[in-house]
Amino acid sequence: MRIYTFFEKTSRAFHDHPSLSKLLLVVAVSGSAGGGLLAYSDSKPSEAANLLAPPETENKKKKVVVLGTGWAGTSFLKNLKDPSFEVQVISPRNYFAFTPLLPSVTVGTVEARSIVEPIRKLVRKKNVDVRFWEAECISIDPANKKVNCRSTQNADLNGKAEFSVDYDYLVIAVGARSNTFNTPGVEENAHFLKEVEDAQKIRRSIIDCFEKAALPTLSDEERKKILHFVVVGGGPTGVEFAAELHDFVREDLVKLHPKVKELVKITLLEATDHILNMFDKRITEFAEEKFHRDGIDLKTGSMVVKVTDKEITTKALKNGGEVSSMPYGMVVWSTGIGTRPFIVDFMKQIGQANRRALGTDEWLRVEGTDNIYALGDCATIVQRKVMGDIAEIFKKADKDNSGTLTVKEMQEVLDDILERYPQIELYLKNRKMKSIVDLMKDAKGDKSKESIEVNVEEFRSALSQVDSQMKNLPATAQVAAQQGTYLADCFNRMEECEKNPEGPIRIRGEGRHRIGTLGSLLHWEESKQQLSYQETGSPLGTAASGCGILCMRDYPIRASSFRLHSTWGISPWSQPPNLDLTITFWLIKPIDWLGKKLSSKLIRRLVQNCSKQVSWRTRACVVGDWMRRFIFGRDSSRI
Amino acid sequence: MRIYTFFEKTSRAFHDHPSLSKLLLVVAVSGSAGGGLLAYSDSKPSEAANLLAPPETENKKKKVVVLGTGWAGTSFLKNLKDPSFEVQVISPRNYFAFTPLLPSVTVGTVEARSIVEPIRKLVRKKNVDVRFWEAECISIDPANKKVNCRSTQNADLNGKAEFSVDYDYLVIAVGARSNTFNTPGVEENAHFLKEVEDAQKIRRSIIDCFEKAALPTLSDEERKKILHFVVVGGGPTGVEFAAELHDFVREDLVKLHPKVKELVKITLLEATDHILNMFDKRITEFAEEKFHRDGIDLKTGSMVVKVTDKEITTKALKNGGEVSSMPYGMVVWSTGIGTRPFIVDFMKQIGQANRRALGTDEWLRVEGTDNIYALGDCATIVQRKVMGDIAEIFKKADKDNSGTLTVKEMQEVLDDILERYPQIELYLKNRKMKSIVDLMKDAKGDKSKESIEVNVEEFRSALSQVDSQMKNLPATAQVAAQQGTYLADCFNRMEECEKNPEGPIRIRGEGRHRIGTLGSLLHWEESKQQLSYQETGSPLGTAASGCGILCMRDYPIRASSFRLHSTWGISPWSQPPNLDLTITFWLIKPIDWLGKKLSSKLIRRLVQNCSKQVSWRTRACVVGDWMRRFIFGRDSSRI
Repeated sequence: MRIYTFFEKTSRAFHDHPSLSKLLLVVAVSGSAGGGLLAYSDSKPSEAANLLAPPETENKKKKVVVLGTGWAGTSFLKNLKDPSFEVQVISPRNYFAFTPLLPSVTVGTVEARSIVEPIRKLVRKKNVDVRFWEAECISIDPANKKVNCRSTQNADLNGKAEFSVDYDYLVIAVGARSNTFNTPGVEENAHFLKEVEDAQKIRRSIIDCFEKAALPTLSDEERKKILHFVVVGGGPTGVEFAAELHDFVREDLVKLHPKVKELVKITLLEATDHILNMFDKRITEFAEEKFHRDGIDLKTGSMVVKVTDKEITTKALKNGGEVSSMPYGMVVWSTGIGTRPFIVDFMKQIGQANRRALGTDEWLRVEGTDNIYALGDCATIVQRKVMGDIAEIFKKADKDNSGTLTVKEMQEVLDDILERYPQIELYLKNRKMKSIVDLMKDAKGDKSKESIEVNVEEFRSALSQVDSQMKNLPATAQVAAQQGTYLADCFNRMEECEKNPEGPIRIRGEGRHRIGTLGSLLHWEESKQQLSYQETGSPLGTAASGCGILCMRDYPIRASSFRLHSTWGISPWSQPPNLDLTITFWLIKPIDWLGKKLSSKLIRRLVQNCSKQVSWRTRACVVGDWMRRFIFGRDSSRI
Repeated sequence: MRIYTFFEKTSRAFHDHPSLSKLLLVVAVSGSAGGGLLAYSDSKPSEAANLLAPPETENKKKKVVVLGTGWAGTSFLKNLKDPSFEVQVISPRNYFAFTPLLPSVTVGTVEARSIVEPIRKLVRKKNVDVRFWEAECISIDPANKKVNCRSTQNADLNGKAEFSVDYDYLVIAVGARSNTFNTPGVEENAHFLKEVEDAQKIRRSIIDCFEKAALPTLSDEERKKILHFVVVGGGPTGVEFAAELHDFVREDLVKLHPKVKELVKITLLEATDHILNMFDKRITEFAEEKFHRDGIDLKTGSMVVKVTDKEITTKALKNGGEVSSMPYGMVVWSTGIGTRPFIVDFMKQIGQANRRALGTDEWLRVEGTDNIYALGDCATIVQRKVMGDIAEIFKKADKDNSGTLTVKEMQEVLDDILERYPQIELYLKNRKMKSIVDLMKDAKGDKSKESIEVNVEEFRSALSQVDSQMKNLPATAQVAAQQGTYLADCFNRMEECEKNPEGPIRIRGEGRHRIGTLGSLLHWEESKQQLSYQETGSPLGTAASGCGILCMRDYPIRASSFRLHSTWGISPWSQPPNLDLTITFWLIKPIDWLGKKLSSKLIRRLVQNCSKQVSWRTRACVVGDWMRRFIFGRDSSRI
């Protein structure tokens, strides 16, 4: 019908043909230092992407329904490879967003479109049927194995906006919403920073403030009020946003609004005593010191109690609880996460009404349900307490039923026990003990004797403190992504493990669990050498890039390029992609300065987890955005 | 206070220092053909951009107020160089937008941010005070030389949102709004395509339609309705949008929604008999033939009479005026331009109530006012009729008062007359005559005799038909930009010309006009060799890129790259910037095929006019967007 020209063919080849899909694109940037950046196109063949069409229904296929297209859901979808599943994805967002870069989007360091990728493109499979519906889940019906959904555009669908989807397995990965802690006026007057749309709104709002302040009718006093930006919450998102805003003003807006320097004020409010308090102290100190130097007003120990359209009211948490108000131009609220309404309903249905998130076991199965899994920010793993199972553990270990445990007996079940109760290992590490045997020695008060035997009471007393080390996994991109990968792996090997169970031994029952727990997988993946998030207890998601930006803030290429090299899977340790060797070294230095061990592990993890989540399009876009900012600055058009 | 690092310094150097402002950036794209693209950074020093600060008021400076930041306003601002003016710019948009690329923004061939540039950045001056207020003009008070304005964000300004600005000279360049011709339901249900926001809304709306159609509850019949895209208006904007949408579906969406090919339908409705009827017939034929091949349904001769939320009703203009309705998913309305409400009010005030746009004389001064100028789409030049002035023209030319005009007498005033009455030249061209002398010969019926004399009656009869050639200037970017440049030139030379008038002789009065008319300037600029828009009567603005896209539609790099080479000031005739020589030649070929004379002139004009209007940032962004599309395709995330 049509004759393709050479160029059309070339363009098509770039994104169509598998044989060319790793086609090399070299962008050589001849700037101050010169070099080149390697990027590959990772498009997949289009033939397989049968997403709109009804599936050729082999009725034997098991139906997996995935709710959500964030880190957890996308990671699960990307790693699911067993063709015996038929997958339906339901989410109000038809794209995956690389959330750690959201603070950069608020000021245009990176464009919104550079950090999103259509979910259909990301999850195209050669052999697994994946279909996507842009809709919200409104309720879950576990009795009939159904989810009820509503299209996000229900206006003109003649009542066809609502529909139900059957599942054999349900994967809930809907994330969380911003938590206002019911503070009056927040919903109405503050900006959140969780979605791409939030970042775009903040960007317009910042420009609005500057345009308002430029109006000829205002006094300098009024201008100061309008140009007062308040950030609530000293977590990584809030801290990064404050830093990005400061840079936008200092590097770009000041050229177009010269008097602005004296009028702009950025205030960060944090209820606790320090910002970034989930991190190593050195990071917190560095950040606070840097904010001080930059003139960002840091108010710790003050809790926001009310937000009106013009003023924000805080209460000091110490010194008599003084209440004070300040006028503002814009507030960004970033204090923590809350539960989505339909998840709250679902939790009531399944007897979890008292939790803050869906409780699951170590295999991510929602407690009190069949074949429903939950992961990411909407879920929390309910870890088993050692003390609750102590008699059964003793019994399992005491194979000869002698009533006492020898070191040898203990060692035989040690791996299984550590897998089910990771708090033991954390406790040992904190006490600087090498193994559970040391605990037993400790309990006996006998440090020299090599062959120790303990009875059940001594065993109980030896382990009595370990449950104090139980910690929830942090609500970060990394955790969500790892959980998605883990769950996909469980699904992929479901049949195989049914036949040959390979999990830890059952403490209350016979035989083995079918598959290893999430905890064991993580430990295994890290070959017990690297820092796991359970061990540090610090979120590495936006957090690490938060730490990145802060470490970098005395270096010009900072945030963006740090992220280029770390979060975007271009590791500074592997052969650097020639973008700029010098830049890479500049980046490594301050990190080293923070302590080699900590930083390298942080970043290695970041690279491991994030590099799988993004496409080469988004990587190229972010590199492009960064170069653009470097040369032309950030754009301040109000669009 | 702070120590800048090497990299920070480098980055700053890029956009700060005048000495480096032309710093070379070479982006070498090693793709199919290899090469490199040259781009210069054209940043200006920041010291001069004192926009927020109150001006150091030298009271002697004349106050120029410019309303609008579109093609006309921006072109005026960029070319105004006389430091004796103090300029205030008022517009609800704090940026200039390169409107010919709006249809590309609707589908993501080009990103919105790539075609805008903050007005403050564009008009930074070394020696002219320019300040900007983001506000709408709500009324003009010519008696008190004031404009009354309202901030676009009037919500929280405590009544300080409204303010007045005094002027000595007022330049009205507010453009036009979309014209619905009062068709019921258009305002509520159709998309327009005039502003950047419109294009962004259309982009989201297209994705919405595809997501809606993908829902599992719908029948194929319902899907077809939702995927029926209707474009109203066969002008360049409508035609380009239809073409871009078709490409988006064919090149990108079809990969993610494979069945879509059979379900999507694009219909273009045009009231007249042909699309692009302001162009050369060959372009119209080519476009219609191409639409036919692409399966775009072209319905000419049908006028839209009603739009509801689900259906669009048309009436055939011939054959009994049959009325029919069709269901649709999305309508884009692009039929023409209307007058902004405050301009309508102003026209009533100054006795121009019957016009469709502000009438001005040939010097762009608004008729019936003092020191008010209007240009661009909100204005129209009221050309003088030769017949109205015929006695005065004769008298002026008949220097010896003999009652007859000789050829010699005629030739002495010829240039002045042609400048005031450009319709004469058009008439001569259409009659294939070389000069007005031929007209005189014609009137005498005596073609051989060289020395002709005509009396006033013969002169009147010779020129009796010339006024039929009077045409309004088309409402295009080019016209607006040229008018802006012309008016800035008038302002720059105002004092000089006051002393030494250099305009045409006054027909009804003594001496000369102070400065040449717009018409003469255009003729002069083109050294009478090139096609002026008055001569062709065809809009060259979006139109020419429309023609471009159409000519290109059988060539893969088409639209975007055509624009790269033409509208963005990278002429294919000058040394091509190495991006891809081959591409350049591919582009030239089809244009040559359309006739060398026509196309080369079109493009030369395009290059001349547009290359002045944009920044190197926008150029680089568009090149980047185009490369991105070439490699990765267009993004279909709903943001």
